[in-house]
Amino acid sequence: MTKQLLSLFFVLSTTLVSFAQTWIWYPGDYEIWLGNKMNNHRTERGAFFPPFWKQDSHYVTVEFSTELNLSADETIHIATEGLFNIKLDGKMIFGMPSELLIPAGQHRLNIKIHNQQTPPALFVSGRTIKSGPHWKVTYEDKEWIDENGKASDTSATTYMQAGSWNFNSPSTPPSQFSLAREVLQPKSTDGSLYDFGRETFGYLRLHEPKGTGDIYVYYGESPEEARDTEHCETLDHLIIENNEIVDLATNARSKITNDIYTFANSKAFRYVNILTKGNASFSSVSMDYEYMPETAVGSFRCNDPVVNQMWDVGVYTMQLTTREFFIDGIKRDRWVWSGDASQSYLMNYYLFNDNDEVKRTTWLLAGKAPISSHINTIMDYTLYWFISIYDYYLYSADVQFLHQIYPTMQRYMDYVNSRRDSDGMLQGLSGDWVFVDWTDRPMDKHGQLSFEQILFRRAVEAMAAVSHVVGNATDEARYKAQAQDLAQKIKPYFFDDSLGGFVHNRVDGQKSKDIFKFSSMFAILFDYLSDSEKKQVVEKVLLNENVLKITTPYMRFYEMEALCKLGMQSQVMSEMKDYWGGMLREGATTFWEKYIPTDHGSQHLSMYGRPYGKSLCHAWGASPIYLLGKYFVGVRPTAPGYSEYEVCPSLGGLQWFEGNVPTPYGKISVQMSAKSITISSDGGKGTLRLGSETISIPQGKTLTVQYSQNKNGIKVKKISTK
Amino acid sequence: MTKQLLSLFFVLSTTLVSFAQTWIWYPGDYEIWLGNKMNNHRTERGAFFPPFWKQDSHYVTVEFSTELNLSADETIHIATEGLFNIKLDGKMIFGMPSELLIPAGQHRLNIKIHNQQTPPALFVSGRTIKSGPHWKVTYEDKEWIDENGKASDTSATTYMQAGSWNFNSPSTPPSQFSLAREVLQPKSTDGSLYDFGRETFGYLRLHEPKGTGDIYVYYGESPEEARDTEHCETLDHLIIENNEIVDLATNARSKITNDIYTFANSKAFRYVNILTKGNASFSSVSMDYEYMPETAVGSFRCNDPVVNQMWDVGVYTMQLTTREFFIDGIKRDRWVWSGDASQSYLMNYYLFNDNDEVKRTTWLLAGKAPISSHINTIMDYTLYWFISIYDYYLYSADVQFLHQIYPTMQRYMDYVNSRRDSDGMLQGLSGDWVFVDWTDRPMDKHGQLSFEQILFRRAVEAMAAVSHVVGNATDEARYKAQAQDLAQKIKPYFFDDSLGGFVHNRVDGQKSKDIFKFSSMFAILFDYLSDSEKKQVVEKVLLNENVLKITTPYMRFYEMEALCKLGMQSQVMSEMKDYWGGMLREGATTFWEKYIPTDHGSQHLSMYGRPYGKSLCHAWGASPIYLLGKYFVGVRPTAPGYSEYEVCPSLGGLQWFEGNVPTPYGKISVQMSAKSITISSDGGKGTLRLGSETISIPQGKTLTVQYSQNKNGIKVKKISTK
Repeated sequence: MTKQLLSLFFVLSTTLVSFAQTWIWYPGDYEIWLGNKMNNHRTERGAFFPPFWKQDSHYVTVEFSTELNLSADETIHIATEGLFNIKLDGKMIFGMPSELLIPAGQHRLNIKIHNQQTPPALFVSGRTIKSGPHWKVTYEDKEWIDENGKASDTSATTYMQAGSWNFNSPSTPPSQFSLAREVLQPKSTDGSLYDFGRETFGYLRLHEPKGTGDIYVYYGESPEEARDTEHCETLDHLIIENNEIVDLATNARSKITNDIYTFANSKAFRYVNILTKGNASFSSVSMDYEYMPETAVGSFRCNDPVVNQMWDVGVYTMQLTTREFFIDGIKRDRWVWSGDASQSYLMNYYLFNDNDEVKRTTWLLAGKAPISSHINTIMDYTLYWFISIYDYYLYSADVQFLHQIYPTMQRYMDYVNSRRDSDGMLQGLSGDWVFVDWTDRPMDKHGQLSFEQILFRRAVEAMAAVSHVVGNATDEARYKAQAQDLAQKIKPYFFDDSLGGFVHNRVDGQKSKDIFKFSSMFAILFDYLSDSEKKQVVEKVLLNENVLKITTPYMRFYEMEALCKLGMQSQVMSEMKDYWGGMLREGATTFWEKYIPTDHGSQHLSMYGRPYGKSLCHAWGASPIYLLGKYFVGVRPTAPGYSEYEVCPSLGGLQWFEGNVPTPYGKISVQMSAKSITISSDGGKGTLRLGSETISIPQGKTLTVQYSQNKNGIKVKKISTK
Repeated sequence: MTKQLLSLFFVLSTTLVSFAQTWIWYPGDYEIWLGNKMNNHRTERGAFFPPFWKQDSHYVTVEFSTELNLSADETIHIATEGLFNIKLDGKMIFGMPSELLIPAGQHRLNIKIHNQQTPPALFVSGRTIKSGPHWKVTYEDKEWIDENGKASDTSATTYMQAGSWNFNSPSTPPSQFSLAREVLQPKSTDGSLYDFGRETFGYLRLHEPKGTGDIYVYYGESPEEARDTEHCETLDHLIIENNEIVDLATNARSKITNDIYTFANSKAFRYVNILTKGNASFSSVSMDYEYMPETAVGSFRCNDPVVNQMWDVGVYTMQLTTREFFIDGIKRDRWVWSGDASQSYLMNYYLFNDNDEVKRTTWLLAGKAPISSHINTIMDYTLYWFISIYDYYLYSADVQFLHQIYPTMQRYMDYVNSRRDSDGMLQGLSGDWVFVDWTDRPMDKHGQLSFEQILFRRAVEAMAAVSHVVGNATDEARYKAQAQDLAQKIKPYFFDDSLGGFVHNRVDGQKSKDIFKFSSMFAILFDYLSDSEKKQVVEKVLLNENVLKITTPYMRFYEMEALCKLGMQSQVMSEMKDYWGGMLREGATTFWEKYIPTDHGSQHLSMYGRPYGKSLCHAWGASPIYLLGKYFVGVRPTAPGYSEYEVCPSLGGLQWFEGNVPTPYGKISVQMSAKSITISSDGGKGTLRLGSETISIPQGKTLTVQYSQNKNGIKVKKISTK
């Protein structure tokens, strides 16, 4: 895959970004602002729990500009979020007009907006003049005047192309965005315990609250949690008095003005346990389910109901964790974590294919300069961030985004490179969190971890690849050389022939004898091994019962993908049915943060030293979506944005499946059984790969490959298009 | 002064900061937030006009912490601006309680506050526990937990001491701060023109507005400006319709609910010209004068009424420009400019001695990392910023502030040093504004300007001096060496013996023959010249009629100070009466941005190519305050915070004067006539210098030196204390 990765960029690609009139802002600023709202909704047993890393803010004054060449006079309508001024050809206009007549001819139009509270944002609509991502923005125009009222040295002013999303009407200013809501009723009640039937997320509603006294609400992803008032992770406490409700988590006080009291902060739960004190009472409960409207273009159906359920529960897990941003899980953190998000991106490419969600999350994770720690403080999470940007380009062909984010990527790689040791490798320094995975025996985090160096090499390769796309040849050469240097060192430093894989780490130049699966998995994923090494690694590490089993779906994701890359789909199908199927057998309605197959019942609930610390709806649990789409349906881009793609379908032990994979053109549909393969696509140049054979997929037509036996009992293949 | 500057730091000084309970925040954050409000009130002919440099924002989540050792249980009261949580000994408390009982014993108390809109701020009051500048703050605690629920690598977390001002009650949260107001009436009316009697600042009030139509308001610092509706710098336009007033500058709409309509944005003016259209009308006008309450401890009175008026007009100019921050002028920019502010600081030390105002302005000017341009984009303005911090320390002995600001100083000096040429000197690079002064003939800004290198040397010396105070010996040695390197190069590069001073610049290694006064003035001020060079410079440059005259009070400030340092007070007194006295003769009620003595009447009003572009109330006009206090009353600190000081009084041609100079102890009073000198002081170790003679000023007593003639006609001096 490495060679392929680097050669992809010789394909000239076009972005598929639309240029309709839309609200615009400084790229990354709205995302950071909205992310602050998202990340600051975590609570732990009623205490507000913000992130422990630096949270940034938008530029409070932004200049938006464009150049015009009008064939006729044109009136523009202007809407802003913030105080603003307008300069036409350098001359300021009185006031803050909502309309402006611009005469025919060439003009420079500059609009400067100041807003301390929410990101400065602009919407301009005219017959031909429309605000959009082609406008330039800067946070510092450096336009000064000399004593004669002239001059302006803007030669050092940095302009960016504007950021945008889908706010395409003047009446939908970006700061007013909110997720969709829908009222849901509990499915059953058992005393004080209400069961909403499956894991969900939103705002609890108390009907007809009245009296005087306390209402205590204990939320649970399990009935055990909701009933354990001393240990459940989230809770609420209201006091009703004098026809007022006081929310003691925030001290917010509200008059009882209608029949329903809706809590101000959202929670994740399936069960709610509600107790009262005094004569406070309510008649019933319901909830405002809150969600990001997404369309699941990706789909999968097969003969095996467990696999179908795995897909469905994966989709619902993704739906719940795909919010303003891709978050980790809905109960506890509700934060944006880079390692988790990198997996959500990949699943998203096989489900919603929502580019904006990927970009927003990427901007938020990066934050603003100066960099004061790794992303989320985690070394591996910074490295995933680079890799995921390359992935995004591969799936989207969004060149504009690469141009926008590249300066931030440079800044981060400078930060990472400034922390290398004398071998040019990364060791955890003061304040760094070296994560890798939650493992069931202690993992030594000292010295050079082979896992981190493999990720590092891949991150540097991603930098080289992106440098190429944005046309920075100097960076490209530099990063290629750096990746090469790492490549030459990683095997001699860490690969142990007798153990048949990468040892875990190297402390003060001493190679350890410890083996985990992680490094070997990623070396396969990134195609860093020869065929003989791969064979060795599979046998001695990946399928070796003595090597520590992975118990998070997070790393099982990559473990399964590595096996798929080796063509072991049948093995993967069986493991998926064991592992994700195991969660389903335990009653999961969404996939979990961690699953130990030997545990049962309430043993599954604890983590982080807390009885209900584990998240039972965690994005990284949903990987069947990605694995089924990419390695069974078998669809993947081979040039940016699916301008070229391949389909390598695999039954993996199933009798039949039918699946759709979203692409920028629409979707690619594949049906497969032992007897036939049918493929149709909305665009792109496709190739069906069947072993070493390749068959071109004709554009706009359906390709069918049929297998039958002729009368001599010999298997015959018939290829047809229509 | 250089030697003295560096030796001062061997005196151990104590800060005079009080530790009463007060609102606290992340140092610099409130200042930047308040500064954004201040800097975004400029308008130009009704158009909103924000600054052209990067404006930063506060950290949206800040953790405040302190360690406690309580002899008894104690209840604390907590007020915050923002959502918050409380951790006592690492354990989070439910909700956001306004009271908390802390048991006797040792504790860690952490309060984390999130606020996107205004700076997170905290007020804690208990019997012994009080929020104050001794609390620690961080924007990123990096406190993460491992899978077992323990750990936290905070070894790389950066803590600062909290910032504060004077918000000493829970009911005065910092974000609610506003300046004081007072209603003023116009002094006279001439048709549509209202005259408030002198330059002023605030919000115009229209009494009994009614009817339907337009009200046009044209503001003027002069009657010419207010009457020139096409060219006046600031204006307003209201529409009255349906009992509503629409302010067309902002589109704000308000019901006419009482008898007086007060404009939302403040303006600077002495005259207001109000025209109406349709049958819109009003009965009369008044204004809300807006000001920062300051106490003028500094004072000066003498036998010469022109000098007294110069002092009074200087004080009023300072009062108007000393607002949330020290701003440049009240009519046009209303922005905080470093070069201007540096002079306001110096005047402030002889008038209000408001340390907080100096610190706020210094924080705002610095903004936040990353640095994307010089302060205000001006190279010289960055250099003044360093120098002014040293000055502040000399007048205040505020060691805590040096510790807080030092990382920012390092960052700025790194930025400056990264822009040096191969000689280690500063040339204007792309995007840099090389200002120096508004001069009446073109000034070449190319290559190495001698003026900038002299300021640069002084800035590096200030870095070395501050490094010493904060105990950073590595930096101190480095900056001393750098200053020495500059010192060795500046004279051979720029001093021209035949011309008798520093030439203006050096382009591509070629010394120009052009001479301005600026470099020579500053070389005298900073004591960079030998006695013979000083003599040469005075004769051939400073008093040379052929060298371009300075016409801004900005640089006349330093020109006059240089002459004072050479003991030429009589010359200075005469020039002050000519120059500042000249403005008074032209009717000035505040001092101006620029004054060309050969201009008269309305010739004085234009600047920047606009007929009323000149500011007639400009802080840098008020330098008589500084010159009279420091070089006539003659009081200056010789150790930080006036722990040691000297008095070198000089009549400079006056018959008598009496003056007070504020100090951290209170004030120093000096009366002088040809016959006697009387000095008293509220603290500090003082020395009276009379030529080469020194007399110790006894603490807590009044020193009198009397001159008389004995019967033989011989002058006799009598020294007494009581």
